[in-house]
Amino acid sequence: MEQQKIILASQSPRRKELLSQLQIPFDVLVKDSGDEIFPDDMPAEEVPVYLAIQKAQPYKTDLDKENFIVITADTIVCCDHHILGKPADKEEAVKMLQMLSGREHEVITGVALTSRSKQQTFTVSTKVFFKDLTLDEIHFYIDNYKPFDKAGAYGIQEWIGMIGIERIEGSYFNVVGLPVQRLYTELNKF
Amino acid sequence: MEQQKIILASQSPRRKELLSQLQIPFDVLVKDSGDEIFPDDMPAEEVPVYLAIQKAQPYKTDLDKENFIVITADTIVCCDHHILGKPADKEEAVKMLQMLSGREHEVITGVALTSRSKQQTFTVSTKVFFKDLTLDEIHFYIDNYKPFDKAGAYGIQEWIGMIGIERIEGSYFNVVGLPVQRLYTELNKF
Repeated sequence: MEQQKIILASQSPRRKELLSQLQIPFDVLVKDSGDEIFPDDMPAEEVPVYLAIQKAQPYKTDLDKENFIVITADTIVCCDHHILGKPADKEEAVKMLQMLSGREHEVITGVALTSRSKQQTFTVSTKVFFKDLTLDEIHFYIDNYKPFDKAGAYGIQEWIGMIGIERIEGSYFNVVGLPVQRLYTELNKF
Repeated sequence: MEQQKIILASQSPRRKELLSQLQIPFDVLVKDSGDEIFPDDMPAEEVPVYLAIQKAQPYKTDLDKENFIVITADTIVCCDHHILGKPADKEEAVKMLQMLSGREHEVITGVALTSRSKQQTFTVSTKVFFKDLTLDEIHFYIDNYKPFDKAGAYGIQEWIGMIGIERIEGSYFNVVGLPVQRLYTELNKF
């Protein structure tokens, strides 16, 4: 990898923590990319990369001036062809966890690496299998962990993930928020 | 679950941390169960439960006196029918990681729940897929993380896991050291 400065374009503390653990120096620079809008008829698995590319737009003027690699990413939770975003309130969080209970869903992250001269994108998907969650477990989790900043209303690294997720297929850290193994490989090739 | 006192019979800080996150009160009590010996011809997948049962033996006198549930566990890393234990030195750690590089292996944990009147055992297995690791990556990891207390010479939650593990099939926390989801279910049924 060339000694280009790496910029993480995310305010997520989980993404910052995960990227730190790769032992690659980087800075965080967050710019507003406006509302996250995508075409209604877009297949769910294409949405995260589409949004990651949108999120890279506001950095174009910086890239003209400096030799950066900007990392933008978007993660969605997809269950039965429904995209679950961040829950607006407790009621919606309960509904999301009831939807995920006792079945499989997918966590899909799209990442864009953008420099002055090129852009590389990739998508990483992980299957997640929840046991049947009781309403007591769902209420206990939401009341104590307030997962309103999390797509699908859960964090795999929190109590509900530990007692509720029977198995995954794919990258664990992708579910936490950033597919670090693939990102490490793509940064080395970039 | 009855209000029986739960005892974690392990000095592993990772197991203690994982069990803490289940939000179930417990104490740690470590007793020496002697050498971990198993029959040469025992299939690898039966070894962890066999050792977990052995580790419960020294607690029998305590169980006569008090209403405990003792949790004992043993984890092995199994690659190509070889059981990898904790590496004795750097040379052995390098050999283990070279063996795991670019292929699939299994992490198998056996757990025994033992009370005065009964014993319940179970085994949880997770498949782990490493990318091709370079010798530079292996040396960097061993020099900086000193994985001599870890079966198979790696921690999935450390740098080598983040840059090297492409995917898993099964429970992530089982690979960290304790299959907490299954343990939660079994404790509730015990």
